[in-house]
Amino acid sequence: MGEAPLDALMSLDPETFARESRAVISFLAGYYRDVEKFPVQPEAMPGGLGALLHDTPPENGEQMDVILEEVWRHIVPALTHWQSPKFFGYFQANASTAGFAGEMLCTGLNIVPFTRAASPAATELESIVMDWMGKLVGLPDRFLFSDGGGGVLHGSTCEAVVCTLAAARDRALSRLGHEGITRLVVYASDQSHSTFQKGARLVGVPRSNFRVISTTAASGYGLTADSVREAVEADVASELVPLYLCATVGTTGLGAVDPVRDLGELARNHGMWLHVDAAYAGSALICPEFQHHIDGAELADSVSMNPHKWFLTNMDCCCLWVASPAALTSALSTDPEYLNNVTEESAAGAGVVDYKDWQIALSRPFRAMKLWVVLRRYGGAGMRAYVRRHVEMARWFEQALEADGRFEVVAPTRFSLVTFRLRPRRDGDDDAVDGLNRRLLVAVNASGRAFMTHFVVDGKFVIRMAVGGAMTEMRHVQDTWELVRDKAEEVGAVLK
Amino acid sequence: MGEAPLDALMSLDPETFARESRAVISFLAGYYRDVEKFPVQPEAMPGGLGALLHDTPPENGEQMDVILEEVWRHIVPALTHWQSPKFFGYFQANASTAGFAGEMLCTGLNIVPFTRAASPAATELESIVMDWMGKLVGLPDRFLFSDGGGGVLHGSTCEAVVCTLAAARDRALSRLGHEGITRLVVYASDQSHSTFQKGARLVGVPRSNFRVISTTAASGYGLTADSVREAVEADVASELVPLYLCATVGTTGLGAVDPVRDLGELARNHGMWLHVDAAYAGSALICPEFQHHIDGAELADSVSMNPHKWFLTNMDCCCLWVASPAALTSALSTDPEYLNNVTEESAAGAGVVDYKDWQIALSRPFRAMKLWVVLRRYGGAGMRAYVRRHVEMARWFEQALEADGRFEVVAPTRFSLVTFRLRPRRDGDDDAVDGLNRRLLVAVNASGRAFMTHFVVDGKFVIRMAVGGAMTEMRHVQDTWELVRDKAEEVGAVLK
Repeated sequence: MGEAPLDALMSLDPETFARESRAVISFLAGYYRDVEKFPVQPEAMPGGLGALLHDTPPENGEQMDVILEEVWRHIVPALTHWQSPKFFGYFQANASTAGFAGEMLCTGLNIVPFTRAASPAATELESIVMDWMGKLVGLPDRFLFSDGGGGVLHGSTCEAVVCTLAAARDRALSRLGHEGITRLVVYASDQSHSTFQKGARLVGVPRSNFRVISTTAASGYGLTADSVREAVEADVASELVPLYLCATVGTTGLGAVDPVRDLGELARNHGMWLHVDAAYAGSALICPEFQHHIDGAELADSVSMNPHKWFLTNMDCCCLWVASPAALTSALSTDPEYLNNVTEESAAGAGVVDYKDWQIALSRPFRAMKLWVVLRRYGGAGMRAYVRRHVEMARWFEQALEADGRFEVVAPTRFSLVTFRLRPRRDGDDDAVDGLNRRLLVAVNASGRAFMTHFVVDGKFVIRMAVGGAMTEMRHVQDTWELVRDKAEEVGAVLK
Repeated sequence: MGEAPLDALMSLDPETFARESRAVISFLAGYYRDVEKFPVQPEAMPGGLGALLHDTPPENGEQMDVILEEVWRHIVPALTHWQSPKFFGYFQANASTAGFAGEMLCTGLNIVPFTRAASPAATELESIVMDWMGKLVGLPDRFLFSDGGGGVLHGSTCEAVVCTLAAARDRALSRLGHEGITRLVVYASDQSHSTFQKGARLVGVPRSNFRVISTTAASGYGLTADSVREAVEADVASELVPLYLCATVGTTGLGAVDPVRDLGELARNHGMWLHVDAAYAGSALICPEFQHHIDGAELADSVSMNPHKWFLTNMDCCCLWVASPAALTSALSTDPEYLNNVTEESAAGAGVVDYKDWQIALSRPFRAMKLWVVLRRYGGAGMRAYVRRHVEMARWFEQALEADGRFEVVAPTRFSLVTFRLRPRRDGDDDAVDGLNRRLLVAVNASGRAFMTHFVVDGKFVIRMAVGGAMTEMRHVQDTWELVRDKAEEVGAVLK
């Protein structure tokens, strides 16, 4: 390009845009066609990519086909393929045609709806779609805009947690004064997501005031109200102030469920904010047969779930609902002059939602478009069928494990996450069995034919098989079962 | 769809994906072709969209063309068109063919690179691209990975600010103990972005410990080291602890520049963390003629800029560089078992970057792909030409204002933001002139032929013309000047 003339970039010329974008679409369609053939996790060594790419940015631009060729040659082979139908690690991150279409509309229109005035339709669509999702997952009416609550789309659960922690904190400090911040206590279980610990630190709760309450196999690794009560009473006796309690529906490690109603009653009794984290399992709640898991949610202050996990909504998208929008906005609102709307000076007072005051950042993408397209394209019935298909596959895998005497299922498979391990053959075998399971997981992943991750509970190494990929079919789960059996045979040979 | 069979969604079938995605591409290309014809800001009334859409989600899915038709009919007309070449409000949010292509790759591959192990190429590409951008904007070497610093891509400046505030806070509290949190003080100017105040509140700094230091026309609304020193010394005398100072290169209201070197020296003397916020003007720093504005950046602890503003990178993308990654990660790291890599147990100790510990959230999109495609497609030379074109347009507009006796330019146009107002005709006219300028802005925006926003400085209502749209050409700026002149004539008639 050299000394480029002023208009040379044609950076948003419609014809260039259409031509180059179509090339990217073909690239991605090809990727989806081939993704099953790649090893799910690459064997890329640290620094491998750096060696292939230049260490300074190019001075002159290049054509899109050259760039796509490099992506295919250097980058794709060094990715972990989250969209592979054989990806069973962590929790899935669903892509879909509709999620992608919605993200393209969001990215292409590229508006920044921080206030309603900055793009009216975006704010309104977000409020509509949050009420839609709230109804779909069976939330109590108090979380809907139509009943005085409301919802917002964040990028991640962590953001939702930080915002609700800040709201709870400011509510408490308005009573205690700011120096009370050192007395605030946050409660979670040993199964809760690490985001609660990180979030509590971020908002200034002392690290020593984060209570990790133990769970046991007896409650399916759910948090019991009795154990929380004990911790709360001890803290109150030490003049500490219970602030925030997290209940999880579908924990990351084991898919465990905390008893929302019991915890909600306890939280109310002690003036704590109750947050229900249904990041993963929230998607299952659209099916009536799973909605009993959030029985008692009317006692919560906030609820969150991630459509970007198991709801065909490409990264990133997290739904947060609150019963009291004012509690959130009083912690998060700002009012700089450069954002005021010159034509509607009193709008903010008139019940207008300015989403900048519901989140950490000012800038925000038009995420509502993405979730709206997913809901329109697949509908409630389509999404329920989608979720149930994975639940069925997970149950099949669980039954296969149980029918084979060598394995044990560690926590009950409530949704689509199966947790299992090779069982000890005799007492005292535990350490050896841990090593065996670790080697089993390494062998499965090294085969490239599936990818799973692990967890440790009660000191035991556990393999996690998270079913839920958009392209995962029963045959992939069946193949993976064969793979697990074969690899168990291989690594088990040592112990025989 | 009714009782959908199990595989009915075909949610990532390559042929469906390609066909429906191409329809979205055509839709967007058509939007870019027509966007100039829409009123930049719609006349949508609150609740307008809700009346057009159903209040429950659909039970059955619909075809993509039906959905796109509704977007075109109901949503597009109620958007503020940030991609219009006549959008001059806030700061621009650039879309481009390359930025869009990068986002499509990110969204389509849909990986979640929270740790290096979760997708090696994504982490490495991010480190590479952050060093590229650091070199391009002329940062001191200490912010590059090659020299012990490093960078990360966040979604917004606000996130970068929260993370650096948390790092600074934890560094201070390790000395003071947690109860010291009530003594920490954050300094910014009356021109700094509201995110600093919000960020300070989020991390637990008392609201009363946020110092808003006045600036004046004499320093071009830049923060002077003397005024900060005075505030710092008063706080130290009251046994408060100076924590964090923000220097802005290109403020939101007026495009003012704080003297980085002077503020850096002061910050060092008092053990404060210095953050340089170049959210908007950071893009101009790729041109040598603007790099003097960050002279002294080697004294800073962190620097941020937003490619999603004026660097052709679609929302969202914020670069954050830190001199000491350890300061950041010690405030933000977590180590849950379910994220540990079973095959590289000691990897974290081996200098591997796990970006989850550089940000608020755990989940994160593959933003590096987007910025990498932009840099590859347009190159350093292309981007400099792009930025200079807008600077030239802004200067033209400024000169037109100055040549017309009725207007005054409020702050010097350092980059591509012009701040202006109708001047008072005689002393004591100020209130009337404010009303006049307000009416001028309302009239300009109501015409639909341009969109600008405002600011208030020294009690004066100021109109902001932020040049920098991807499709903005000189003719749009010239048309807008004619529009402003005409509307000034109309609203000025009253005062004549």
